[in-house]
Amino acid sequence: MLEDYQVIVLVVVCSIISGLFALYNAWVVKSIVLDDSYENLAANLKGKETVQAKEDGHPHVHFKVPEITQMISDGAKSFLAAEYRILLAFIGLFTIVILVLVGAGQNNNYIFGAFSAIAFIVGALTSIACGYIGMRIATIANGRCTIKAIEGIGPAFVVAYKAGCVMGFALVGLGLIILFITIMVFRTYFQDNAVDLYEAIAGYGLGGSSVALFGRVGGGIYTKAADVGSDLVGKVEKGIPEDDPRNAAVIADNVGDNVGDIAGMGADLFGSFAEASCAALVIASTSPNYVDSLSFMLYPLTLMSVGILVCLVTTFFATHIFVVKNAKRVEDTLKGQLAISTILATPCIFLITYYSFPLGDFQMAATTTTSIKIFGCAIAGLWTGLLIGFVTDYFTSNAHKPVKDVAQSCETGAATNIIYGLALGYKSDVIPIMALAVTICLSSSLAGPYGIAVAALGILSTMCIGLTIDAYGPISDNAGGIAEMAELGPEVRKLTDALDAAGNTTAAIGKGFAIASAALVSLALFSAFTTRVNINCPSVQPVNILEPFTFAGLLYGAMLPYWFSAMTMKSVGKAALAMVEEVREQFRSNPGIMDGTSRPDYKRCVAISTTASLKEMILPGLLVFLNPIIIGFVFGKSALSGLLAGNLVSGVQMAISSSNTGGAWDNAKKYIEEGHHGGKRSDPHKAAVIGDTVGDPLKDTSGPSLNILIKLTAILSLILSPFIRSYGGRYFGIDFIC
Amino acid sequence: MLEDYQVIVLVVVCSIISGLFALYNAWVVKSIVLDDSYENLAANLKGKETVQAKEDGHPHVHFKVPEITQMISDGAKSFLAAEYRILLAFIGLFTIVILVLVGAGQNNNYIFGAFSAIAFIVGALTSIACGYIGMRIATIANGRCTIKAIEGIGPAFVVAYKAGCVMGFALVGLGLIILFITIMVFRTYFQDNAVDLYEAIAGYGLGGSSVALFGRVGGGIYTKAADVGSDLVGKVEKGIPEDDPRNAAVIADNVGDNVGDIAGMGADLFGSFAEASCAALVIASTSPNYVDSLSFMLYPLTLMSVGILVCLVTTFFATHIFVVKNAKRVEDTLKGQLAISTILATPCIFLITYYSFPLGDFQMAATTTTSIKIFGCAIAGLWTGLLIGFVTDYFTSNAHKPVKDVAQSCETGAATNIIYGLALGYKSDVIPIMALAVTICLSSSLAGPYGIAVAALGILSTMCIGLTIDAYGPISDNAGGIAEMAELGPEVRKLTDALDAAGNTTAAIGKGFAIASAALVSLALFSAFTTRVNINCPSVQPVNILEPFTFAGLLYGAMLPYWFSAMTMKSVGKAALAMVEEVREQFRSNPGIMDGTSRPDYKRCVAISTTASLKEMILPGLLVFLNPIIIGFVFGKSALSGLLAGNLVSGVQMAISSSNTGGAWDNAKKYIEEGHHGGKRSDPHKAAVIGDTVGDPLKDTSGPSLNILIKLTAILSLILSPFIRSYGGRYFGIDFIC
Repeated sequence: MLEDYQVIVLVVVCSIISGLFALYNAWVVKSIVLDDSYENLAANLKGKETVQAKEDGHPHVHFKVPEITQMISDGAKSFLAAEYRILLAFIGLFTIVILVLVGAGQNNNYIFGAFSAIAFIVGALTSIACGYIGMRIATIANGRCTIKAIEGIGPAFVVAYKAGCVMGFALVGLGLIILFITIMVFRTYFQDNAVDLYEAIAGYGLGGSSVALFGRVGGGIYTKAADVGSDLVGKVEKGIPEDDPRNAAVIADNVGDNVGDIAGMGADLFGSFAEASCAALVIASTSPNYVDSLSFMLYPLTLMSVGILVCLVTTFFATHIFVVKNAKRVEDTLKGQLAISTILATPCIFLITYYSFPLGDFQMAATTTTSIKIFGCAIAGLWTGLLIGFVTDYFTSNAHKPVKDVAQSCETGAATNIIYGLALGYKSDVIPIMALAVTICLSSSLAGPYGIAVAALGILSTMCIGLTIDAYGPISDNAGGIAEMAELGPEVRKLTDALDAAGNTTAAIGKGFAIASAALVSLALFSAFTTRVNINCPSVQPVNILEPFTFAGLLYGAMLPYWFSAMTMKSVGKAALAMVEEVREQFRSNPGIMDGTSRPDYKRCVAISTTASLKEMILPGLLVFLNPIIIGFVFGKSALSGLLAGNLVSGVQMAISSSNTGGAWDNAKKYIEEGHHGGKRSDPHKAAVIGDTVGDPLKDTSGPSLNILIKLTAILSLILSPFIRSYGGRYFGIDFIC
Repeated sequence: MLEDYQVIVLVVVCSIISGLFALYNAWVVKSIVLDDSYENLAANLKGKETVQAKEDGHPHVHFKVPEITQMISDGAKSFLAAEYRILLAFIGLFTIVILVLVGAGQNNNYIFGAFSAIAFIVGALTSIACGYIGMRIATIANGRCTIKAIEGIGPAFVVAYKAGCVMGFALVGLGLIILFITIMVFRTYFQDNAVDLYEAIAGYGLGGSSVALFGRVGGGIYTKAADVGSDLVGKVEKGIPEDDPRNAAVIADNVGDNVGDIAGMGADLFGSFAEASCAALVIASTSPNYVDSLSFMLYPLTLMSVGILVCLVTTFFATHIFVVKNAKRVEDTLKGQLAISTILATPCIFLITYYSFPLGDFQMAATTTTSIKIFGCAIAGLWTGLLIGFVTDYFTSNAHKPVKDVAQSCETGAATNIIYGLALGYKSDVIPIMALAVTICLSSSLAGPYGIAVAALGILSTMCIGLTIDAYGPISDNAGGIAEMAELGPEVRKLTDALDAAGNTTAAIGKGFAIASAALVSLALFSAFTTRVNINCPSVQPVNILEPFTFAGLLYGAMLPYWFSAMTMKSVGKAALAMVEEVREQFRSNPGIMDGTSRPDYKRCVAISTTASLKEMILPGLLVFLNPIIIGFVFGKSALSGLLAGNLVSGVQMAISSSNTGGAWDNAKKYIEEGHHGGKRSDPHKAAVIGDTVGDPLKDTSGPSLNILIKLTAILSLILSPFIRSYGGRYFGIDFIC
């Protein structure tokens, strides 16, 4: 086993390395001159003609890359500022709720409640910081990626990739070091009371996930309202291309990519990491043979530390070994990153696991285990993540049969396209769910609930790379949009399109990862909840499905993803309609926009998306926060246990199928645009555009938000477990055994 | 308590009354002369001008109502003949499977296996007979309904309604008497061994549900392949109206209504009735204070007997009291039927329950209960059914806001229509699921698992009326189709459209009933399964969600509805494409069809639907039958228990949302066709047609088939429980405790 000081050094050094690597990459990206003046561009041999053509001058309103970048950056900042204002108010309010409910549950020990609340605040602020960093680097990088695309695909890829690295490494480094510091500080108060210490620490996970709710839901509504709204008027009604500067919603659409797909995704995965760690810590601290050694307790943190080093090495394969030289290589390089990091991580995880646990058998919760078994859990998670990633790729990339079938079905119109797409999404559940079921059986058999938490950490160990390639997507998407707006010509646009297409696939893979980790994290949290809630019982009681309240909870919980999705999809629809009205109105009141002689008012569209998404965020938010509190309080722990299980098993299916259906429609449209089945502007293309538009809220709003729903419900229940234990169901005489 | 002879008299007399009432109604319908010759029609004052116009003669191919009726009838017969051939082969095969597996599970007692197998055969043949009766009366009635529509809406309504009665009362009467006879015959062999007796009887439920699988899935694929295929070419490509005789698929479409919506629905509800009765019988027979009295044991049968009388009285309200005089009254009369039967049933159920059970407290399974508590369970089910029916109406009828919102969203195109429709379906889960959760808590608290079975019987007690108004829908739909083909003019078509619109709403309500009963039936079967599978255990073990294999089973089970839906939707898509090819080919090779000078070959389309649906039925069928057998055998009872629970809680959500989404799209289209948002042939109408086409497989194939999936998986597990108990998981060392 590692000595305490070795653990401290490992975690601190790896966090710092992660932070420095992020800073370095940020410096590289920022040092690119954001200048598309003729002189600067002309220096690039390849770009010359294109720019020349442009300078020769048509009467169009002239846009410069720096100007567009500035508008996107301003829009993103103003949305995040508005969102964070609401978030701070929410954090303040919910801090009190936690303080009171947790304190009351712990025999009116409000100091304990205060520690939970502090951990909650720290987690929430860390998540906000991570989201902000991601958004900043993305808005800095996207214009620079466009500029570099004039030089060629290689340099442009490197910009987007390095910007992704900033997001990935900054987030993991920051999350890790702050969790570590919080634990160390709390230890000075709780001393040897590990059970209470780590229960309080779980607030960190709640904080992270609460912010993620707003990031994913608010950001998701924002980005899709803008996207759907701009497509409905621009592409469908006016027949102008995507990202055409005459479309008033075009800036809002680009802003959306940054606030939804980057800040939201970052917050989501940060939440998974924080929650998986907390679940492992809570379960480990209730182990009967609890060992007061950092090596044993802080295994989740050392595992992530090692993951940082693995991912760092992996990035060199993208930037130095498998260098991107043509469009075809982009997707392989990105997908290769996942495979490489998984392969490299396997032996490294073995070493850290071997040195983290006492030799021979030891108790972990109710399970006797060994370090080899723990290693088995981590590896099961790690490779399941990769498998699910590649299955997602199979169902959403247009290189494979499923998407080609969907494209084919567009020949008979939009209706068959929708039917085939929905069926594809449903079918894409089969293998991931089987893989998750096997992982759960395996890791749970090896090391009980702790094993499931470790499996979740296993998926997340390569999170830096996951986040990097996730952030890469929206950045290259934005770069394409900027190229279109700045009229850098078809040559440049072709390159950015190639970068973007690869980003679509990796985004789908990233969603698969996020969902798989969310499922395992939630199950670990659920196990931790049942352990905590039964803590005064003579033996831990099973959660009996046949008990009426448990089964009713299970049924009710399985309904929540539907309710939640209904809300978020409806929200996108409503916000998109508001956007449609605005864009139409601008076209109507200012005919100069269509001629290209006058500029639309982009800011009004940004404001509409901002207001609508923040308003529409409230109801889904209430649903997530109130359900566990009300059901737990009124009907007690059996009903709440059922709710958690039902919510989990139903939400995962829907999240996977929604994401993959949306991804498949998007790529089926791209496949047709490449010239199949009649190509652009044919009838099949129109049918494909309808599918793509339907898929937008599925894959970028309701689907990914379901991760948050299941994780947040679970961690909130865990945090409130003392309260549920003391008061749940008592007032209604329902649940007072134990 | 009732004496044994009183029970026998009650059941036998009510069954006979039910049968006679069905026969009487069949005679009334059949005695209408099917003759649309000028002389016959001219006798009706109102129809005169219309028919006159037709006789004045345009050059069209001339169709007579009897001729069309004959074609539909022939098509339906040929499909059912083909389907039943396959079914008989399947029954033969599966009889052997049951004989072997059940016999092996019962310590190689193959005589016991044989009784299960015989009950299975009896249930299957009864279900086949019921489906056939329903199909026959429907094909007899639809042309006569058209003829009567010339007289006015009242007479036409009565024809469709009375034909529905034939279906409803024949099915319940037949199902009841045959179940009763089977029990009586089996009793002579099993004597006092009630546990084995009723376990063998459960084969009856399995037989009923197996046929329902083929009816619902095969019939569902048939009807929607024809419907979608004919719409895609006719309405979308050629711009000819629905049911236009120039469309080669039009007869297949009408046949589909009879084989899918009538025979399939009948088999589904018959299955629910058979399974709910069997679940109650199995649970009651394992009661520690088992009383060998028919009054106690045959309560499910006496409850249904009383239900027959209640429904019979209810029908007089439709035919004699609230007589339909105008189009607006149709829907109210039909919906009123449900309310009236529920109100009338309440006191009647109280009486039969009071006289069926011993006075004072008695044991039912592990629960001490009284007859008042049992009454509470039945009433909870009964009124939950009505509530769910009216919620379904709210979400799918275009008299209410949700569907109007969907219609409104068509203004911005098909994409927003799809998004709004999906969100509506998801949202429509909320209240039904809450109602089911409350019913489960309530009835389970009152009388344990037996209470849940009784709640399911409560919903089904008014089944005659449910089936009547269900069968009414497709008959009036077909009547409209025939009016269009026979060119009886817009006056007649308007009346049949009004009848049909009300049928759409009641069809949606009927689906809500079917799903709610399926959910409760499956839960009762699940409880019975866990009781049976643990029968040698010292105390009945709880099904612990936290056990790895149970949770993995739960997750896997929750995925099955997605897998199953993917298969059935894809099947509809494939079969519809084959139909599209055929119809296009006929238009291409024979230009006379479009001019109306030459007839298309309807038979070829009927043959395509028949072949495709029977072929596409195989994979979903295998999924349903193999899953419980394989998972149960390999992973044992914990995994299978998890699977059943997951499958149930996930499938119900999907079934409700699929049905309601489809229903809402259908009625949104009708709403626009009434002249809102631009009316027929406007852009919003085109968007609405796309939604309607997507909704077809959801509401008529995949959604309703999910009922069968969850019920059949549960009853198959129950039947195989001796096998699972003896062998499940043993060969893999997984599940050998108890």
